[in-house]
Amino acid sequence: MPLTEFELIRRFFTYPARHAVLGVGDDAAIVRARSGFELVITTDMLVAGRHFHQGADPEQLGHKALAVNLSDIAAMGATPRWATLALALPRADARWLAAFSRGFMRLARRYGVDLVGGDTTRGPLNICVQVVGEVPRGRALRRDGARAGDDVWVSGTLGDAALALVAGRLGLASRNRPPLRLKLDAPAPRVGLGVALRGIARSAIDVSDGLTADLGHICERSNVAAVVDFARIPASATLKQYLHRPAARLALLAGGDDYELVFSAGRARREAIARISRRLRLRLTRIGRMTRRRRGAPPVTVLDATGRPITVAHGGYEHFST
Amino acid sequence: MPLTEFELIRRFFTYPARHAVLGVGDDAAIVRARSGFELVITTDMLVAGRHFHQGADPEQLGHKALAVNLSDIAAMGATPRWATLALALPRADARWLAAFSRGFMRLARRYGVDLVGGDTTRGPLNICVQVVGEVPRGRALRRDGARAGDDVWVSGTLGDAALALVAGRLGLASRNRPPLRLKLDAPAPRVGLGVALRGIARSAIDVSDGLTADLGHICERSNVAAVVDFARIPASATLKQYLHRPAARLALLAGGDDYELVFSAGRARREAIARISRRLRLRLTRIGRMTRRRRGAPPVTVLDATGRPITVAHGGYEHFST
Repeated sequence: MPLTEFELIRRFFTYPARHAVLGVGDDAAIVRARSGFELVITTDMLVAGRHFHQGADPEQLGHKALAVNLSDIAAMGATPRWATLALALPRADARWLAAFSRGFMRLARRYGVDLVGGDTTRGPLNICVQVVGEVPRGRALRRDGARAGDDVWVSGTLGDAALALVAGRLGLASRNRPPLRLKLDAPAPRVGLGVALRGIARSAIDVSDGLTADLGHICERSNVAAVVDFARIPASATLKQYLHRPAARLALLAGGDDYELVFSAGRARREAIARISRRLRLRLTRIGRMTRRRRGAPPVTVLDATGRPITVAHGGYEHFST
Repeated sequence: MPLTEFELIRRFFTYPARHAVLGVGDDAAIVRARSGFELVITTDMLVAGRHFHQGADPEQLGHKALAVNLSDIAAMGATPRWATLALALPRADARWLAAFSRGFMRLARRYGVDLVGGDTTRGPLNICVQVVGEVPRGRALRRDGARAGDDVWVSGTLGDAALALVAGRLGLASRNRPPLRLKLDAPAPRVGLGVALRGIARSAIDVSDGLTADLGHICERSNVAAVVDFARIPASATLKQYLHRPAARLALLAGGDDYELVFSAGRARREAIARISRRLRLRLTRIGRMTRRRRGAPPVTVLDATGRPITVAHGGYEHFST
């Protein structure tokens, strides 16, 4: 017998809310923001056939649907607090839902996020998550705060997720594929880093469209330019094995879906950032610097080992132009 | 040439935010909640082929996608403040988007709602909206506040939207179809009423699944039962013409998508509610009363003109059981 919407919500999506006045079960959830804090609000929609394969592992999907939103909250330097989940499903499949809910809720609990509401309906598989976070008033990390002279930093390593997508076509050794897939399917949102960078970074963004595109967004909004040294861009041991191939270099520079943070900070912050890196056990790499914007020049210039600009054909991932 | 996601957002979804610190264009929006207020959060997803026809008028769709969320906020007695919009589209069609945006933004402006963020992607048409509202601390209208002895009230008229869906099958006169369609395609969320009922109503819900089902949700959460007089349920002049037909009576009792409010209030509030009705020029009808819950009895009993219970075959609209 098919599950009704109410049974479905009760079985898979009703959990005690830890910091909500009223969670799932009314027309809307009720929550209380702390005084002196601002709220940050973000939403992301994942569509079958576009962001994941129809047969994708539901537990990883549950993780990823929340992770991409937490990544946006992290890029604002905020603490995620409340999430809603709207789900369109071809059919109410209890096993699929149990696994999806497990992946979603495990990540939610790790970061103290309450699932406070949602909607379920029948339709082509579509996952829409919204997260509301809190940040002390005026302390959010924005895209428009970078200044010429800032260092440019990036967390973790880049390019694995994009390389995973073309691993088959490139004929990568099968032992090398699982670590790449892990970055694509189960990204780790940099929530702790975002919070730690409050008052230290001047601007931040998460890498969802690719390093050059996302750093370009900071440049546009801050009216600066960025110069990046290709050799400094952090790559995983797996990706390094393929750096002789153009596809791997493109993945590193312009591959999306890494969900690392790119941020800028004054030179005086280098020691503070090194301390954050040690405390979080998270690699933070200085890859370049912000400069003045010159009319007609591209916002982001990538230099090769000899100091010459590299031409980037693919400036990032555009959802409606590809 | 297809529109990129960035062009699309800039052209159709970027409006000055009136009460946001930072609107569309960063990883997340930043807003400031007023002190002494709680936040209410809701989300609704509309799917082509399920909630509307593939060829539905995009301007009405834009209106409806926001309206159903504002209705949830209204049912909480809250003031809607900020919205996000996630949109999956088969293709970036500028005319469709312009019309959709027009319908969405007209309603947003009417209620002072800022569109602060969103996501666009390619995929089967799917519209997911979230709204965050504010309500003075502890004053939200919830489903769990009804008491035995309360009057049961409903706003406007019921059943038109459900009747519109079967107008063709029933062979209704064509002059009667447009007013019914209007309730289905362009519902008016009862935002002003919700705010006016703070401190007056003890419980509230919006009629999205049908009167008996939604009143049943209040009964379940409040641990009371409801008795409704069928003859008192307010119907439009159009629907009244068809009350001899079972489908019209079913639409009145159990049809969804009306987005009116059902609420309960103590008897001492009758005059205050009449004043609200006059001030808002909105019909508010007392249709029954809350009683004690008896073990094994249904939560909602509907009485005919002779005082005998009517059997309701279809208790409401269940998204996964039909």
